[in-house]
Amino acid sequence: MPELRQDRFTKEWVIIAPERGKREGAKREGAQKPIPHYDPKCPFCPGNEAMTPEGTLEIPRQDGRAGWQVRVVPNKFAAVSRTGQPVRHVDGSRHTVEGVGIHDVIIESPDHSQTIATLPITDVGMVLESYKARFDAVSADPRVAQVIIFKNHGFGSGTTLEHPHSQLIATPVISSHVRGRIYEALRYYDDFGVCIGCASLEEELAEQTRIVLITDHFVVIEPFASPVPYNTHIYPRRHMCSFGQISPPELSDLAGVLKTVLERLYAGLDNPDFNYTIVTAPADHSDAQYYHWYLSIIPRLTQVAGFELGSGMSINTVSPESAAEFLRNVRARKSQGA
Amino acid sequence: MPELRQDRFTKEWVIIAPERGKREGAKREGAQKPIPHYDPKCPFCPGNEAMTPEGTLEIPRQDGRAGWQVRVVPNKFAAVSRTGQPVRHVDGSRHTVEGVGIHDVIIESPDHSQTIATLPITDVGMVLESYKARFDAVSADPRVAQVIIFKNHGFGSGTTLEHPHSQLIATPVISSHVRGRIYEALRYYDDFGVCIGCASLEEELAEQTRIVLITDHFVVIEPFASPVPYNTHIYPRRHMCSFGQISPPELSDLAGVLKTVLERLYAGLDNPDFNYTIVTAPADHSDAQYYHWYLSIIPRLTQVAGFELGSGMSINTVSPESAAEFLRNVRARKSQGA
Repeated sequence: MPELRQDRFTKEWVIIAPERGKREGAKREGAQKPIPHYDPKCPFCPGNEAMTPEGTLEIPRQDGRAGWQVRVVPNKFAAVSRTGQPVRHVDGSRHTVEGVGIHDVIIESPDHSQTIATLPITDVGMVLESYKARFDAVSADPRVAQVIIFKNHGFGSGTTLEHPHSQLIATPVISSHVRGRIYEALRYYDDFGVCIGCASLEEELAEQTRIVLITDHFVVIEPFASPVPYNTHIYPRRHMCSFGQISPPELSDLAGVLKTVLERLYAGLDNPDFNYTIVTAPADHSDAQYYHWYLSIIPRLTQVAGFELGSGMSINTVSPESAAEFLRNVRARKSQGA
Repeated sequence: MPELRQDRFTKEWVIIAPERGKREGAKREGAQKPIPHYDPKCPFCPGNEAMTPEGTLEIPRQDGRAGWQVRVVPNKFAAVSRTGQPVRHVDGSRHTVEGVGIHDVIIESPDHSQTIATLPITDVGMVLESYKARFDAVSADPRVAQVIIFKNHGFGSGTTLEHPHSQLIATPVISSHVRGRIYEALRYYDDFGVCIGCASLEEELAEQTRIVLITDHFVVIEPFASPVPYNTHIYPRRHMCSFGQISPPELSDLAGVLKTVLERLYAGLDNPDFNYTIVTAPADHSDAQYYHWYLSIIPRLTQVAGFELGSGMSINTVSPESAAEFLRNVRARKSQGA
């Protein structure tokens, strides 16, 4: 019997239906091609800096060699314009805002072939430091209401470029989706007097069945109402509504956690396409008691179809409990083999 | 300058950014293979009826030959179970409902190679009649709260089978997504005393720039805050909250409208992968004054990436005004060429 589960943050239902996993789906064709360390046509490879706009942040290499380790540049095909004011127009029910904001690309490594799963932890740490520096700078822009940091890995994730990179898009509005999350979190806080994320974490730690990993500062969970197979949340254990509140030791811990989880997905699911995104409070809610930020990794193993588009619900053929067990065992296999 | 536009039904923002369309995206590789009229391994082809569960509805061929034209069967790999009761369990913040409901497959033609765009209008009419008959029957089931009818066309749409088919999934809950639409529609009705869909239609007919087609009973529109290129809505002109209220003349008109629109997408965009879904009021809101059903066609020309997953917003590189002009001209080219 399938089971419907309600996501506590969005109140959306998910159908957990492992039996449906037995139908034949589209298979990935052939082995993945090896990726070169350097691609002369790639706009993100060292030496091709002129192919991108001038950088807004560069972290130099730490190995004594010249050049950058992480480079942040404005997106050449930006979804929003860095100049202008977010002027609003209301004409009957047609509401528009001029498309002002920030759209950055965070180039994660000079090496074209790397990804978070394969980079050394110190290099992952530099990527996260660049997220934090840009998040803080962009959040302080009075035109910015909401900052989304995300990564698209593999062509099935929506990326158009192979070189490892993340992106940051800051918009002059809070999206309806985020407002819905705020509403539910506030409502929970009003009912119970505690942060919905802190409460969820306590329940998950007590139940244990969906825990993948625990470190000093983070807990990795397969969410109770996981909408897709192997959706993985990385929660800070301390109450923090905004990614901007992360401390240096937490950032350093997060680098190890993120690398470990992506390594396990890489090893366990054969380098799947995935997205990740930092789910955080809006720019001006930087100290809210009711909201809890987390990083969500969304493997793209299945496709959204008409049911999901029409209903907003999802059908997940892998239970989060079995996904958590699988991801715990990837570690076990790796340790045993080492 | 990109423009943010607010969807009036969901209040979600969309970034309309035509400039961003100039970046290179993944191209569809090679020409599409011709599809045979009959595939001996296909569970939906005539003669293979034993490969599917027993049918719940069959419409016989109208051309004098034996056999069925449309066949509705339970989905063999159903997302929900047809038996049992939607028992609810609440354990702290873990809310579940047993996965009871109906999951039908509507086999649209005995011919493996056809699609709505290529079927005769009378055959499309029979597909819609089967939607209506099943919608009515399933809505009357007291376990059912919400009925989603949808179609996945092409492997990029999430389908796993080539034979032309639609699906119906009835769930024992109203999804948060649909509840959000109801809330916004009710709020609009409370503010202005008219149905948000009727008001939208009036504004669109006055402005004209996003209209693709008008018939006796339907208006075809590229929505103001279209989340993806060529998203197309087919609205009934008469106030109706539920697809179950459609009359026989309207159903017959809809067959022509749906075929025409899909023909234009087929011709204009080279047989794109697409989904469509009927956006309708929940099963027990069958006569609401504030809600308006429509059919939404979602071409799958672009991929959802981390920004969309994190924010709920979309970036659309084709303005609905230019999409509407394009789809009006596909007709013109066709007529001139005929």
